Amino acid sequence: MLKRKSKSEYVMKKERYEMRFCGSGGQGVITAAVIFAEAAGVFGDYYVCQTQSYGPQSRGGSSKAEVIISTKEIDYPKVVKMDCFLAMNQTALDAFFSNFETDGLLIVDSTFVEQVPTSGAISLPFTEIARELGKEIVANIVALGAIGYLSGKVSMENLEKAVIARVPEKFRELNIEALHAGIELAKNVNVDNLSHSPSLDDIYGHTD
Amino acid sequence: MLKRKSKSEYVMKKERYEMRFCGSGGQGVITAAVIFAEAAGVFGDYYVCQTQSYGPQSRGGSSKAEVIISTKEIDYPKVVKMDCFLAMNQTALDAFFSNFETDGLLIVDSTFVEQVPTSGAISLPFTEIARELGKEIVANIVALGAIGYLSGKVSMENLEKAVIARVPEKFRELNIEALHAGIELAKNVNVDNLSHSPSLDDIYGHTD
Repeated sequence: MLKRKSKSEYVMKKERYEMRFCGSGGQGVITAAVIFAEAAGVFGDYYVCQTQSYGPQSRGGSSKAEVIISTKEIDYPKVVKMDCFLAMNQTALDAFFSNFETDGLLIVDSTFVEQVPTSGAISLPFTEIARELGKEIVANIVALGAIGYLSGKVSMENLEKAVIARVPEKFRELNIEALHAGIELAKNVNVDNLSHSPSLDDIYGHTD
Repeated sequence: MLKRKSKSEYVMKKERYEMRFCGSGGQGVITAAVIFAEAAGVFGDYYVCQTQSYGPQSRGGSSKAEVIISTKEIDYPKVVKMDCFLAMNQTALDAFFSNFETDGLLIVDSTFVEQVPTSGAISLPFTEIARELGKEIVANIVALGAIGYLSGKVSMENLEKAVIARVPEKFRELNIEALHAGIELAKNVNVDNLSHSPSLDDIYGHTD
């Protein structure tokens, strides 16, 4: 088993960090992406570009959102190679699992994903936790908490501010509870101990 | 006064239609842009790309969202020249009024915009109407109804479907009411009779 680069080392080396959030229509991945983008770009100090694209394939009921986070101005606003991929169900995972950065984070909702493409995947029960909180629709916010914690790109304080700014006041308490449940889930994951697929660099040495 | 090209003629000639929605943080322009994008791309037949970008200027509390709508795949996902610009307040109008297509639609919330840069601007009281409906925060949905109607890029049926799919069930009725109020406002606007700034083509003839 190859050892993943330490998380802090990995986060530091990336000037540009590319994320994709996918799920079915009702799973709230666009809302999660908008909140993540605002945590990093409005409340945090990054340049951020957040995008949704729709085409003939949009009729299938699947939903996809992207977030690019950078320390410099963003020239190309779409994902080239995913550093972080959230898949809220199996269809989304199967459809979009491509161009994944070998050191990247693959995070799936274990409630709806049975088969992961790599042993390095992080499988967490977002929807199950949301159901326990009483509302399945906050599964996206549980996932947001976990991704926020694991990606190292936003402070938990800014993430909370962004959630509060975005959700209706009536649902604020529930959403903050969901966010913290996601953060707690993520604290039990040891990213540095996950296996990952070998890159060409790992196999052949650095090729520059 | 120069006569604007007829609306139907204008809509037909554009393969790519570029929109920007701006306002202050709480005015819901990102939500309006997401719903417009879904009306055109999920419920309608267009290719759509919807973007928000954040940078150091994001701290000012202003909010900006873009929607590109096209009959073909979208190569460049950001606005080059606005065909439709919604400004929900004066600051947003002043900050982002640039690269405006001379035949384009400039739509402002007259509740918060006093000074428009062209006599061709369409000034409608979105927030005032929303207050009459009982909730100022649905001003974005009133604006959405008006833009949807005036842009000619989405059917009112698809716009309604997109609103229903996106807003919490508890607020559905209010939002649909707001949408229809916006559509009714727009029906009183005669786009073909608005004046517009002369383009170089108007002054010097076509220069190709």
